[in-house]
Amino acid sequence: MNKQKIADDLKDLQDRICTHLEALDGKGIFHEDIWQREGGGGGRTRIVQHGKLIEKGGVNFSAVHGKLPDVLVREFGSKGDEFFATGVSIVLHPENPLVPIIHMNVRYFEMDEHIWWFGGGIDLTPHYIVPSMARIFHEDLKEVCDRHEASWYKEFSKWADDYFFIEHRNETRGVGGIFFDRLDASRGSKEALHAFIIDLGNDFVPIYANQTIHRTNKPTIEEKEFQLLRRGRYVEFNLVYDRGTKFGLQTNGRIESILMSLPEMASWQYNRVYEEDSPEDYTLKHLRKGINWLHYKGH
Amino acid sequence: MNKQKIADDLKDLQDRICTHLEALDGKGIFHEDIWQREGGGGGRTRIVQHGKLIEKGGVNFSAVHGKLPDVLVREFGSKGDEFFATGVSIVLHPENPLVPIIHMNVRYFEMDEHIWWFGGGIDLTPHYIVPSMARIFHEDLKEVCDRHEASWYKEFSKWADDYFFIEHRNETRGVGGIFFDRLDASRGSKEALHAFIIDLGNDFVPIYANQTIHRTNKPTIEEKEFQLLRRGRYVEFNLVYDRGTKFGLQTNGRIESILMSLPEMASWQYNRVYEEDSPEDYTLKHLRKGINWLHYKGH
Repeated sequence: MNKQKIADDLKDLQDRICTHLEALDGKGIFHEDIWQREGGGGGRTRIVQHGKLIEKGGVNFSAVHGKLPDVLVREFGSKGDEFFATGVSIVLHPENPLVPIIHMNVRYFEMDEHIWWFGGGIDLTPHYIVPSMARIFHEDLKEVCDRHEASWYKEFSKWADDYFFIEHRNETRGVGGIFFDRLDASRGSKEALHAFIIDLGNDFVPIYANQTIHRTNKPTIEEKEFQLLRRGRYVEFNLVYDRGTKFGLQTNGRIESILMSLPEMASWQYNRVYEEDSPEDYTLKHLRKGINWLHYKGH
Repeated sequence: MNKQKIADDLKDLQDRICTHLEALDGKGIFHEDIWQREGGGGGRTRIVQHGKLIEKGGVNFSAVHGKLPDVLVREFGSKGDEFFATGVSIVLHPENPLVPIIHMNVRYFEMDEHIWWFGGGIDLTPHYIVPSMARIFHEDLKEVCDRHEASWYKEFSKWADDYFFIEHRNETRGVGGIFFDRLDASRGSKEALHAFIIDLGNDFVPIYANQTIHRTNKPTIEEKEFQLLRRGRYVEFNLVYDRGTKFGLQTNGRIESILMSLPEMASWQYNRVYEEDSPEDYTLKHLRKGINWLHYKGH
């Protein structure tokens, strides 16, 4: 399995996801921009704005190559400095505050023949946490993982808890999901790992569809306001911590494709506090690590 | 002149600035929160929200002390690891897109008796750049600098151009201003440098007042939309580059005080482009380094 085949499969994955998301949305149509990277390679950015379900979202494919900065060459223990990286990245900001924000990324990286790995993850950021919905999300992810390796869901969901964390707020971004990086030959054959990320990608739209059933409710002003504040936190995570974003900003990536992850509108209010036991208070108190959403017993 | 006197003077400066800003605003009243820092010291955060002029703004005073991380102790060449830092930080987000965002910070830092410096700056972020207004701003700053040292305006305005720069957008945050750091005994006596930052602080409200004369114009929908996008860039600068914000987030500072710099509402649209020669296009084309606003000849 060579890198071209992996890139082609990811490109096909982007196509399928966009088609299925348009069907799920019922109104929004993806706008496509094809771009070239100066150092080598390029990508296909697809953006939807003002759909029925999705207010702003992106499904990006890229396959880039070129010379890696020396510091990374040393870190990776590579002989040469030529890298190749391909992936699909998704962030969807729904219009309705009762529908969660979702993110997925699957990627492949290689340097020499002998240095290659897969990485990725999915995580869910409900504006309002509903344990039964978080449970469904984690059950769906466990099912995909279990089809490939029995230990992965446990390992990768812990990894997500640690990664999708807003350190300065001491709160998680949402209800977690799975995260994995540098899955190499020690974890399975290239074919097996490739099959895993494609399988995960194929399940993305059905998994999100399971989270959108509340979308017919008409949101209140309070819910819309809270959605904007939760989106502010999403902006904080992406600009301060997200590795992909940081890497892109530092390596002169295509800014509009990288920052498609930011919502159309976000808000910050000084020291906003919510009434004890309000749904907002409930959510803020559940933005913490270590909750086993598969078996969470809270209301 | 000891550190306590410097902190007291900065506290008084905060008082004067808040009083004068309330008078300028005509409606907004500062809400005060007094906080303690776990490692030592504390601060006085003052926030105004939904004033007539200022939609959201903060005027913060802090005086903190404690142990500095080893890496900084080494960088500063200090014998001990006890530091003291005091300062006033201001960010004002006006309601009207024809009024600029403004920021000021003045600060004092010391470690041993022999290691001390002053730092700070003011910069202006017009949502819409108007050269005649940028010129007034720079004339005002030159006047303050010239009262203290003839070479400073030139040096510090260049410094601001380099500092208030959004690298990943290849654009400046606004029309610059002045920025200076580590002004120590090589630059003047402690008394003289202290007098400079207090003088600058005293001129803050009059300088901003000069920038608010357009506020009676009723903004259009297009102007409000552009304001939100310009604020999005402000968020990007503060979360990705601003040294004070980064330092605060990394050292467990009081988050609500640090992030008071973020606007109540901001927006990101994918790849928004503006008509050639529109006021928006004009602004985006003038977000670049090296413009001498004192003598800018453009329209």
